[in-house]
Amino acid sequence: MAEGTGPLAGLRVIELGHFVAAPFCTRLLGDLGADVIKVEPPGAGDPVRQWGARVKGQSAWWSVHARNKRCITLDLKKPRAREIVLRLVARCDVLVENFRPGQLDRLGLSEEALRAARPDLVIARISGYGQDGPQRDRAAFGVIGEAVGGLRHLTNHPPGTTELPPVRVGISIGDSVAGIYAAFGIMAALWKRDAAGRGDGRGRGLDVALTESIFSLLEGALPEYGALGTVRQPTGGGIATAAPTNAYRSRDGIWVLIAANSDPLFRKLATLMGQPELAEDPRFLGNQARVANSAALDEAIGAWAARLEAAELERLLEAADVPATRAYTIADCAADPQFRHRGMVRQVEDAALGPMLHPGIVPLLPDDPGAVRWAGPPVGAHTGEVLAGLLGLSAAEIAALHQEGIC
Amino acid sequence: MAEGTGPLAGLRVIELGHFVAAPFCTRLLGDLGADVIKVEPPGAGDPVRQWGARVKGQSAWWSVHARNKRCITLDLKKPRAREIVLRLVARCDVLVENFRPGQLDRLGLSEEALRAARPDLVIARISGYGQDGPQRDRAAFGVIGEAVGGLRHLTNHPPGTTELPPVRVGISIGDSVAGIYAAFGIMAALWKRDAAGRGDGRGRGLDVALTESIFSLLEGALPEYGALGTVRQPTGGGIATAAPTNAYRSRDGIWVLIAANSDPLFRKLATLMGQPELAEDPRFLGNQARVANSAALDEAIGAWAARLEAAELERLLEAADVPATRAYTIADCAADPQFRHRGMVRQVEDAALGPMLHPGIVPLLPDDPGAVRWAGPPVGAHTGEVLAGLLGLSAAEIAALHQEGIC
Repeated sequence: MAEGTGPLAGLRVIELGHFVAAPFCTRLLGDLGADVIKVEPPGAGDPVRQWGARVKGQSAWWSVHARNKRCITLDLKKPRAREIVLRLVARCDVLVENFRPGQLDRLGLSEEALRAARPDLVIARISGYGQDGPQRDRAAFGVIGEAVGGLRHLTNHPPGTTELPPVRVGISIGDSVAGIYAAFGIMAALWKRDAAGRGDGRGRGLDVALTESIFSLLEGALPEYGALGTVRQPTGGGIATAAPTNAYRSRDGIWVLIAANSDPLFRKLATLMGQPELAEDPRFLGNQARVANSAALDEAIGAWAARLEAAELERLLEAADVPATRAYTIADCAADPQFRHRGMVRQVEDAALGPMLHPGIVPLLPDDPGAVRWAGPPVGAHTGEVLAGLLGLSAAEIAALHQEGIC
Repeated sequence: MAEGTGPLAGLRVIELGHFVAAPFCTRLLGDLGADVIKVEPPGAGDPVRQWGARVKGQSAWWSVHARNKRCITLDLKKPRAREIVLRLVARCDVLVENFRPGQLDRLGLSEEALRAARPDLVIARISGYGQDGPQRDRAAFGVIGEAVGGLRHLTNHPPGTTELPPVRVGISIGDSVAGIYAAFGIMAALWKRDAAGRGDGRGRGLDVALTESIFSLLEGALPEYGALGTVRQPTGGGIATAAPTNAYRSRDGIWVLIAANSDPLFRKLATLMGQPELAEDPRFLGNQARVANSAALDEAIGAWAARLEAAELERLLEAADVPATRAYTIADCAADPQFRHRGMVRQVEDAALGPMLHPGIVPLLPDDPGAVRWAGPPVGAHTGEVLAGLLGLSAAEIAALHQEGIC
């Protein structure tokens, strides 16, 4: 049952994680077939089990967040639990953790102790600011880290257009991006360790910071600032260097994205709007002019869009070959024929919650895609199975550990 | 010179890419040591060479986007160029491409042809919507794909609070996330191909869609919708399930994030604000009450923040141990002592542009970190070196190919 399909079948990962970043990383590894053993404190377990909307008293998010994982409990504050962790580590390829920097050391699970148990272990640490440096001990709140990474400043309307604050991306983008980066780094370290003829057999450490994961996505902002002193500013629904591309509200109040930011596309749009003269208007002739006059341009397109229902807008724009779409809600995503066709919206039987909708597996390997083997399990669901199967503990020994609050 | 340091030293990758997603993926591979050979059309090359602010007439972004790559030119429409690509593919572990689905087939570079040249090639395809399905041929504009992935709907103020459109994240988030996912998938495929004792020697294909990469980040939105019918709505600068956490404008007009969304943190904040009674106010007693009354709460915090300079706010909040930060601009990022300490802001000598600021390497492997070996090179800078070094072509042969417009 633990054995998956997909390229990472046969890989074993231990997660000492909670919240989003480390568990998201191991979800990606598990989706592609890894055997992920997630260690939680006995009792309530990972706080995400309580997060978001509930179904039958349980977090719906958990169904996805912990899928394919074997959830065991161990109270890491107890020496006997630590000893068990080290015995499990000896059977694992990878450890993923997102405690505060230094906390595992204080629990007796330093890198030295981990490597003594498994010399070639790949150790992935995810944190807010990194494992060293003057700010490593700062509390790692996602919204703070995303702001330090430079993203919050950019998700806003242009200076002077509103009194409202910059917008949060709306999802835990920093944690997720850090999690994907960690998954990539883990596989790079494993390849270098294991590749026949090219590997060196050595375990490596990874130090992934949420702030840096976001900061790495800022395109040319840093070299532009360094060379020219220009500070990139937010551009609302549009783009600083191309027009028209924005969201426009339909008669039925739905935001429809239209990206007609090339001369041929803009000509098609102007014709569709019944105002072909716009394409010859000197204010809108060429991308540079359109960018300079994008407010007037957005106003004209907005006035046109406001006269039509979103479905009609989409139909007309598609027929005219102008890239466009409504801003999908999750209902739109769930109904999307392309997502359905590609297995990106799928029904999964959750043993506790019944049939649940899950997102599919990314990245897709069409010939070896992995699988959703099971949904996020209850606290400690696999403690017995793992301790017996991997460490050979008897049922009586496991019962005694449980009795003593160790697992 | 092509040989890097880092865990991917010794890996060779050919990129048939342009714009952001595929080149971002190969940048990550190159940062960790891979030899990346980027193929561009002769002449202007990749359009990103013209994007964004210019330094000495060249794109500053390019300096980062194409760093560590060997840039060669080949006109893929010419049969002789195709033949050279296939000979190069035979010397590579991985191919990364982001043409429109089907376009490489039409150029005679089908999966079959690529595998004939290199049977165990890992082939990573990145596209807007995926390689199959009813919408695979739709134009892959980033802003459209992000909206279809469900993100644009969520980066907005709550319904009814503004007439302004939802905000673009401000960076090419869909392309970047797809690129990181592809890098992860490539390494997973390589591990399964190459791992001693566990590998199967088989090349695998990857099919990464921008829409799906974004959609995979939506936390519990899909299972919540499936089970309960709830459609997640945008929450502006805040979070739906915790308060107070938002951005507040300082007296000097800077947005300062404050995340005091727990009882102890809120008590600290109320004390700092000189209004300790707020922590006992029934409207703000406990997280649930604070979420229900977050507008009033944000107003009170905003009024306090507006009386202080951002630097003073940050100083006070830090001293009180309340997580907070200004929304960093790129200038703030460049000056940040933590980023500087960790090598995340570094000076790189660009042969064409002089000293440039580059972001560091993510993920960080402290003991084997890779390097920025060189900045993004001019069009065709490495054509001669690669064709001579890898394929053994003579200078005369290369000159003839150039003459005929093949490279």
